[in-house]
Amino acid sequence: MSSTQKESIGFCGLGAMGYGMATNLLKHGYIVKGFDVYPPSLARFEAAGGVPASSLADSAAGSMYYVCMVATAVQAQSALFDDESAIVPALPQGAVLFLCSTVPATYAQSVQTSLDRLGRSDILFIDCPVSGGAARAAAGTLSIMAGGSPAALEKGHAILATMAAETKLYIVDGGIGQGSNMKMVHQVLAGIQILAASEAMGLAARMGLDPRKVRDKVLGSEGWSWMFENRVERMLVEDFYPGVSALTIILKDVGIITQMARVYQFPTPLISVAEQVYLQGLSQGFGPQDDAGMVRMYYPQPLSQMTATLSGEDEEIALSKIVRMLAGIHLCAAAEAIAFAKHVRLPLSQFYELANDAAGGSAMFRQAGAAMIKALEGDEAVLDKPQRYSLGEVVEHMLRVNEEAAKIKCPVYLASAALNLLLLAQQGGRDKSADASVIRMWKQ
Amino acid sequence: MSSTQKESIGFCGLGAMGYGMATNLLKHGYIVKGFDVYPPSLARFEAAGGVPASSLADSAAGSMYYVCMVATAVQAQSALFDDESAIVPALPQGAVLFLCSTVPATYAQSVQTSLDRLGRSDILFIDCPVSGGAARAAAGTLSIMAGGSPAALEKGHAILATMAAETKLYIVDGGIGQGSNMKMVHQVLAGIQILAASEAMGLAARMGLDPRKVRDKVLGSEGWSWMFENRVERMLVEDFYPGVSALTIILKDVGIITQMARVYQFPTPLISVAEQVYLQGLSQGFGPQDDAGMVRMYYPQPLSQMTATLSGEDEEIALSKIVRMLAGIHLCAAAEAIAFAKHVRLPLSQFYELANDAAGGSAMFRQAGAAMIKALEGDEAVLDKPQRYSLGEVVEHMLRVNEEAAKIKCPVYLASAALNLLLLAQQGGRDKSADASVIRMWKQ
Repeated sequence: MSSTQKESIGFCGLGAMGYGMATNLLKHGYIVKGFDVYPPSLARFEAAGGVPASSLADSAAGSMYYVCMVATAVQAQSALFDDESAIVPALPQGAVLFLCSTVPATYAQSVQTSLDRLGRSDILFIDCPVSGGAARAAAGTLSIMAGGSPAALEKGHAILATMAAETKLYIVDGGIGQGSNMKMVHQVLAGIQILAASEAMGLAARMGLDPRKVRDKVLGSEGWSWMFENRVERMLVEDFYPGVSALTIILKDVGIITQMARVYQFPTPLISVAEQVYLQGLSQGFGPQDDAGMVRMYYPQPLSQMTATLSGEDEEIALSKIVRMLAGIHLCAAAEAIAFAKHVRLPLSQFYELANDAAGGSAMFRQAGAAMIKALEGDEAVLDKPQRYSLGEVVEHMLRVNEEAAKIKCPVYLASAALNLLLLAQQGGRDKSADASVIRMWKQ
Repeated sequence: MSSTQKESIGFCGLGAMGYGMATNLLKHGYIVKGFDVYPPSLARFEAAGGVPASSLADSAAGSMYYVCMVATAVQAQSALFDDESAIVPALPQGAVLFLCSTVPATYAQSVQTSLDRLGRSDILFIDCPVSGGAARAAAGTLSIMAGGSPAALEKGHAILATMAAETKLYIVDGGIGQGSNMKMVHQVLAGIQILAASEAMGLAARMGLDPRKVRDKVLGSEGWSWMFENRVERMLVEDFYPGVSALTIILKDVGIITQMARVYQFPTPLISVAEQVYLQGLSQGFGPQDDAGMVRMYYPQPLSQMTATLSGEDEEIALSKIVRMLAGIHLCAAAEAIAFAKHVRLPLSQFYELANDAAGGSAMFRQAGAAMIKALEGDEAVLDKPQRYSLGEVVEHMLRVNEEAAKIKCPVYLASAALNLLLLAQQGGRDKSADASVIRMWKQ
């Protein structure tokens, strides 16, 4: 934190994330001129030391840096270009424009095209979606995935570094759109693993397992994911109203994934299933509530009030099934995400590093991801020598989980989709590596 | 109908289907000694001219024919063998035993094994599940899929012929279990197409289409299925309570499919998705209601009260999307069913004939099924020369449907699963035949 007065930054979108980011910039001595369409957000920002702007143009005028942190591409388009007092026309020559919203890569690319067409190629545009939640936004320790021209990235670096954790600022090769693509493939993991946590906890409860014991067993196991660890705590106390991360937020990100998958005609079997279940949750009115509340799609009663009926060896076997269910789903999620990353030409080693250190991380992604990347690069040895499990073994585990769920009539959308993907892959042989076999379902 | 007094037939399971079947046998002059655990069913049967039995053993004693029409394999096992006054010990030497319940093929095979082990190999056992509903049961015009020894099929033929429509008695080669397998693969079509009808009507309503116009457009189109035609009428008037065919019934049949798929480690991506959605419907209390009520998973309000908002060209485009959505799902259903039929060694031409003439029929099954069978038999020309559509064209249609659904936030489980299966297949080339490409996802 510096007490020296720094430059002025324009900012729009002062919601939970944006407010944290903007006030973090204030803490570092920047003057931040913020705008939001919702007056109470603007008032709160002013109380925290920000300069409230009277319009988007007002927030942009005179600042050599501008951070756009609205919720969607539609909002960004309107704020940047379409609004009668939009941001772009008001920006000074040579200003740096950061688009931190999660948007399709094609939208980020269209922003550059629009700037060029408007004769504003002078603006140094950076496509830099963020990840990490409101608390890390406020602490300046976000993960940021940034793409842009070398000149833009150089001039924008100090501000990106102020918003990101030291080790979590990822400059993604390939220019505008690749920041958004990196966020997108990360959200393939996040979107599947958020729902997998609900599916596992819901099935476990229906099986008669104590939810706290499930939590304890999964943490540190091969079924672990960052999302499970994070969401399960809210499930245990029904902290969904409104919770921390609304269903509508992950659904927006998942919608971007499947939209881009349609553009590329790229198969995404698991995240597509997850999207349908999230949409069902939306229909049931869960939209504004925490996404951990999706557990109610599987087990409607509060987990805190369920009575465990299993003990001893039965309990151990059941716990082990839940761990393996999560591991099986996460294995398929890792393959889907890495294959998609390759398809959009992201540097795979960077994606591997980033996801392992972010909310998309899982034990399986860490274990299997490296082998999957090698398999995609044509390493035949990886296919034939299972790193840890043969495909047949993973299939056996998932068969048992699906059998259990069918017996007690619990829907398991992801476990079923993962099993079917594994079974399609197994037609190529059951003794081969699970990791490499699954990712080879995607021909590259 | 004959007025000559015929032989005595034992019968158990006098529910909707069983009552129809038993009274049809009465009409044909047989003496039917019926048993049911539910006294009112027994009383109704007696009022219709049947002989009420006091126990399972009583229903079996002295009859050279016995029809078992209980709901599940668990019930059949108990009735045949486990009950203290079970059927098998009471049957006369050389009696013909018809198991008409829908059960896994492995269960039917276990019945033969049990008979042999009990020293009752004299009993002529026929595995003969039925299809067609209560009205056709009462009219003696069911579809029946029968497997068994030549001796059993010969001695049982007259009674099978009395229960089945003239053209709908299918003697399936391969012995005990193949009748059940034939029913099972038929129900792959039925289980997917029942839900597809709900998904299409729910999406159409959310798109603002008049449900009656959707019905009129689909009938006679490439989106037609027997199930759509049958279920849509009940959707239009909310005739779900209890309706004609309970969700629990199709869910039981679907459960047999996925159970057998797990035994064979055979991929069934679409029927597996359908099962999860049916299980969700069960969780929501729809179990005893008509399966056409699954439309409420997609559009909760009564279809009869929705107000259409589309007209003119927009309406035509939207209607065409619904037709193509159904066609795309049915295409994948046809591939899944035919591949599974091949896997369990059923005669494919017989399956094709049977399904086209039964509740699993669809325009796509009729159009594409023959080409799929040729492709499975290794006919390369079928793969390279699209019969009607290239894979790329079908993918384009399904992309547009999924895009529309995502835009209006309507879950489309089957359309999404079909799209992802088609996209996986499309990695082999988009100009090839849609039919042959999809079925080749299953390596044989």
